[in-house]
Amino acid sequence: MAETLYFEDIPVGRRFFSRTLTVEKDAVLAFAAQFDPQPFHTDEAAARNTLFQRLAASGWHTAAMTMRLIVETLPVAGGVIGNGLDGLRWPKPVYPGDTLRVEIEVMQARESRSNPAVGWVKLQITTRNQAGDVVQMATPNIMATKRERDAA
Amino acid sequence: MAETLYFEDIPVGRRFFSRTLTVEKDAVLAFAAQFDPQPFHTDEAAARNTLFQRLAASGWHTAAMTMRLIVETLPVAGGVIGNGLDGLRWPKPVYPGDTLRVEIEVMQARESRSNPAVGWVKLQITTRNQAGDVVQMATPNIMATKRERDAA
Repeated sequence: MAETLYFEDIPVGRRFFSRTLTVEKDAVLAFAAQFDPQPFHTDEAAARNTLFQRLAASGWHTAAMTMRLIVETLPVAGGVIGNGLDGLRWPKPVYPGDTLRVEIEVMQARESRSNPAVGWVKLQITTRNQAGDVVQMATPNIMATKRERDAA
Repeated sequence: MAETLYFEDIPVGRRFFSRTLTVEKDAVLAFAAQFDPQPFHTDEAAARNTLFQRLAASGWHTAAMTMRLIVETLPVAGGVIGNGLDGLRWPKPVYPGDTLRVEIEVMQARESRSNPAVGWVKLQITTRNQAGDVVQMATPNIMATKRERDAA
């Protein structure tokens, strides 16, 4: 973790880069068994006869791993808290053994209309595999505490 | 699981209702430790001093539990496979002990431009807690195999 980030520290255009995270087969199977029990996510042999043709991670697992990397990369004061996303895309599957990394770019930043202590920031989150292929694009809106208020 | 559903079986306006799923505290903590390690998701005592004021599930955990209920409720031929979502919102937190259920409504259905064997269906997924409050709204696009092709 670097220094705490306030609203003023994350202007439009600022970018952040995560560490890499390797996707373990056991993690793919465990996530799918609990949350997305479909053959292409839960069974290496059965996956061969599906659209994916091999075992692939649930898109929700990709999203969850991406969140892990965001939390580690963006030490926002008060935590990374969002009200949702304006879009989420999985252009390519994630496979066991893939190594993911996340790029975060600030797309919009505005003061809150209801709470003068915070601002809202729209992020573009790009998750790539070891080949550089985009495996997830997401545009969450997160809240960020303002620095001035914190010092008051 | 009911009968297998093909593209023709899920026209605009058709609705599906999931079973209920109770959110266990241990599951909230385990998910957060792995994917969203922030005090309001990982530590019951520390959560009291955060915006949430009590332990709450990660939004990604809510999304993953919702996916579990979708997979059980919508037995689409070939599996529930989507390319992403046009929107995802978490209007209210999910707390340990909450009981979730999911309503699925078909919003749009169109033939694939590239693959005559399938169609694309836009769903509205509403996740509610035991009080009926909406805790998640999502609009995924999923693929569905056509019945005619299957019989050919």
